[in-house]
Amino acid sequence: MSAMEYFPAALEALVEQFARLPGVGSKSAQRLAFHVLNLSAEDAQAFADAIVTAKKTVTFCPVCRNLTDGGLCPICSSPKRDESVICVVADPRDVAAIERSREFSGRYHVLHGVISPMNHVGPDDLEIKPLLERVSKGGVEEVIMATNPDTEGEATAMYLARLLRPFAVKVTRLAYGIPVGGHLEFADDATLMRALEGRREI
Amino acid sequence: MSAMEYFPAALEALVEQFARLPGVGSKSAQRLAFHVLNLSAEDAQAFADAIVTAKKTVTFCPVCRNLTDGGLCPICSSPKRDESVICVVADPRDVAAIERSREFSGRYHVLHGVISPMNHVGPDDLEIKPLLERVSKGGVEEVIMATNPDTEGEATAMYLARLLRPFAVKVTRLAYGIPVGGHLEFADDATLMRALEGRREI
Repeated sequence: MSAMEYFPAALEALVEQFARLPGVGSKSAQRLAFHVLNLSAEDAQAFADAIVTAKKTVTFCPVCRNLTDGGLCPICSSPKRDESVICVVADPRDVAAIERSREFSGRYHVLHGVISPMNHVGPDDLEIKPLLERVSKGGVEEVIMATNPDTEGEATAMYLARLLRPFAVKVTRLAYGIPVGGHLEFADDATLMRALEGRREI
Repeated sequence: MSAMEYFPAALEALVEQFARLPGVGSKSAQRLAFHVLNLSAEDAQAFADAIVTAKKTVTFCPVCRNLTDGGLCPICSSPKRDESVICVVADPRDVAAIERSREFSGRYHVLHGVISPMNHVGPDDLEIKPLLERVSKGGVEEVIMATNPDTEGEATAMYLARLLRPFAVKVTRLAYGIPVGGHLEFADDATLMRALEGRREI
């Protein structure tokens, strides 16, 4: 007999919905559901509407596959962004992270994942074809592989680099090294090795 | 410039909704919003509907003020539950906790909070009047104060005990002591003191 049976069915149903969210356990789901009960009717409706609206209106940019409210994304439609450089990332959140650095003025391409045999994600599950189409149209001089510096991100970058070899395009990878503000003593061996390899004259 | 500005407005709005939930930080809110985008349209709609339905249909039981889908709650409408004992709790989740122990066969009364001057919660903000009405109607022999064993729960129990003094009713408090399965060395001084005070012959 679960604790849930002592709650009304509609509350149980809401707890179950919250419990399906990633990183939300049964106790948290309960707390979130009770929070919703304590909202005003308007606020609860606004929350529900935000879910449906986001799901309905957010689509992929037809060019770079980043998230957009419809049509070209703001970066692809901006004439200020350099079309000759494409930064390839796994996730829309990576676009946000790189934009925050204000260091990049080119365009993006979002793969929506990385190749991961363990999770049954193959190249065909990613937005690779639209990338090849963009590059094959010409005008692209450099493709920066900005997938995560882990095994799967690395393998995906290598796979794409091989696919891009037939095109006259420079393929680069983000630099590895110790994070700014980090401490040497907490850096792992692999990172330190890469930081030494990539050392630059000052 | 926040990272959010690189996401579509509808996604931003959903992230903000999640960020308002208790215990959900901005990173978690982002993760939850992206999770919703990856749901099927039907699942997103079901989530939204669960919010609106719970908010619309869940009400307070007219007798014990516990949550119900409408009308008397299952416990108040069950002829098997002893009407002569009322267990007073602060929150509907406490009802679920006590029911799980299967030790209690009486009725409940849910206060929906405790007296807390710090949080501007006074006796009038709690469901105290309906409790006094229930007791004044007669037939109640014992009222068990099952508010939390902290300062506010204790103060609330004492306050209610004083209010109930004019009625011919026994007022009791849950026993204090070391938790079952707990370790003496981790028990705080106050708990150990109460456990010694309340010791029983075996």
